[in-house]
Amino acid sequence: MTRHQLVQQIKKKKSYLCVGLDTDITKIPKRFLQERDPVFAFNKAIIDATKDLCVSYKINTAFYEASGVKGWEALQKTVNYLPDDQFKIADAKRGDIGNTSAQYAKAFFETLPFDSVTVAPYMGEDSVKPFLEHAGKWAIVLGLTSNKGATDFELQKMVSNNGNEHLRAEMLYEKVLKTAAGWGTKDNLMFVVGATQAEEFVNIREIVPDHFFLVPGVGAQGGSLKDISKKAMIKDCGILVNVSRAIIFASDKEDFAEKARTMAQKYQSEMASYLPF
Amino acid sequence: MTRHQLVQQIKKKKSYLCVGLDTDITKIPKRFLQERDPVFAFNKAIIDATKDLCVSYKINTAFYEASGVKGWEALQKTVNYLPDDQFKIADAKRGDIGNTSAQYAKAFFETLPFDSVTVAPYMGEDSVKPFLEHAGKWAIVLGLTSNKGATDFELQKMVSNNGNEHLRAEMLYEKVLKTAAGWGTKDNLMFVVGATQAEEFVNIREIVPDHFFLVPGVGAQGGSLKDISKKAMIKDCGILVNVSRAIIFASDKEDFAEKARTMAQKYQSEMASYLPF
Repeated sequence: MTRHQLVQQIKKKKSYLCVGLDTDITKIPKRFLQERDPVFAFNKAIIDATKDLCVSYKINTAFYEASGVKGWEALQKTVNYLPDDQFKIADAKRGDIGNTSAQYAKAFFETLPFDSVTVAPYMGEDSVKPFLEHAGKWAIVLGLTSNKGATDFELQKMVSNNGNEHLRAEMLYEKVLKTAAGWGTKDNLMFVVGATQAEEFVNIREIVPDHFFLVPGVGAQGGSLKDISKKAMIKDCGILVNVSRAIIFASDKEDFAEKARTMAQKYQSEMASYLPF
Repeated sequence: MTRHQLVQQIKKKKSYLCVGLDTDITKIPKRFLQERDPVFAFNKAIIDATKDLCVSYKINTAFYEASGVKGWEALQKTVNYLPDDQFKIADAKRGDIGNTSAQYAKAFFETLPFDSVTVAPYMGEDSVKPFLEHAGKWAIVLGLTSNKGATDFELQKMVSNNGNEHLRAEMLYEKVLKTAAGWGTKDNLMFVVGATQAEEFVNIREIVPDHFFLVPGVGAQGGSLKDISKKAMIKDCGILVNVSRAIIFASDKEDFAEKARTMAQKYQSEMASYLPF
C-alpha cells in the first residue's frame, strides 16, 4: 500500500486507528476453544466489528508463534482475511544480517501479504535495507519505544560525531531516527514512537518532520491520544495509533465484539476531531 | 541445558562447534524437492552427518518463516529431531515489550524445545527478562554483530554516565554487554559476538570475563577461528562458534552430507587443538 492510498483511507474513515491483534488464546471467550481455530475465529469477529473504524491492523507475531504451527496457521488466515483497504502490519521486531533479513522480508511480503514489518535497528543498515526493497512495502523501524526499558539504551546519550561539545548530546534513539531516515524514504519507512514518550514527541517530529509514526502505548499502557496527536500530526496525518488490549479485550464475555466496536468507535470519534481534514 | 552440561559435551567431543541450519530451500539438492518436507529431509541428513562433531545446532528462523506454515512445520520437526545432548539455539533475534517477549519465550521454550533464543537488546531490560525466567534456558543477547551495519550504532560512542570526561568513551555495544550482564547470570545469558570483530575480542573478554559467547561469522563471512579462539577462550571454553553455509552448503550435489561432515570434522579438529582440556 502506498502512502497516498493509506492517507486516502484515513481521510475516508476519519480515523488513524490501528487495531492490534495481540490475540492471547488464554484471554478470549471460552466458547472459541471449541472452534477448529479459536484465534482466527476470534480475530474474524473482531475484524468484522471494527473494520469500518480503523485503517490498519497490526498482528503481533509473538502471540501466534506461542502456539507453534497452529499459531502460524491462525496468523496466515488472519492476514488473508483482512480487507484490501487495510494497512497490514506484521509487528515482528525482526532484523538480522542482510541475507537473513531478506528471508524475513520474503516471509512477510511475499509468502504473506503484509504491507509492513516492524524492524529493530540495533544491527544497522544492512539489517533493515532488505525490507525496503519491495515495491509498495514498508519497514517500520523502532525509534523510541513505549516500555520502561527504553531508558536502558534508547534514551542514553551519544558522543557527537562532529566533535562539537557545545551541542546538546544526542540520544541513541535520535541517532537512530536520523540515520535510518536516510536508508529509505518517507514513502517506505515509518518509525515506532511510543505514546508514553509524549515529552519527546515535539523533538521527534522536528528530527523526522515528514515520516509516518506508528504509535503504540495508548490504552493499556496509558499514553494520551490527545497529547500525541497534537504534537505529532502533520498535514497528511502522519500517525497511526495502535490500540490492542483496550479494544480486543474490552470485554471477556459474549459481548466482546460489540464492546470492541464501542471502544474503536470512541477512539475513531476522538481522532476525527484532531484530523486536519 | 545447564552450563555444566554444555561444558561436559564440549569436553567429551573436543568441540565447540555450532552448526547453523540456515536452510535455504533454493540451495538444497534438487532431489529433496520431491520429498514431502524437503527442508526437514535435508536437515535430517545434515544432522545425522555432523552430530558427533558439534555440541550445538542453531536454527535461523528466517529461513523457515520464509515458507510460511510449511516452514514452521519444518522448524518444529527439525528441533524435535535434534539429539538431547545438543544445545539448541533459536536464532530469532526477538525482543519486544515484556508481555510480548513472554510470548516469544513461551514459543521457543515451551511450545518448542529450544535451550536458547537470540535476543536484540535495543528495547532494554524488560524486553529481555522474560527469556531469563525459564529454568535451564538461555537468552543470547546481541553484543557486537558480524555485519557491516555494526558500525551504524553498536560501534558508536556513548557519553559516560559518571561524567568523567577523561575516561575513554564507551561504545554502545560495550554498554550493552555491561548492562545486560546484570540482567542475568553467566549461567543463563550469553552474548553474540561476531568473529569478524577480532580486534575487539580482547576488550570484550575483559568486560564480560565469564560469559559464553556465541560467535557467528566464521566461514562464509570470513572470521578467523584461530584468532577468536585465542582471544576469547576461557577455562571452561566459554565460546560456541557457529558455522552455517560453509558446512551445510559445502556441496550442492549428492555428496552434500559427506562434504558437510568433512567440513565439520575440519573445524572440530582445529578446535580440539585450541581447547584447554
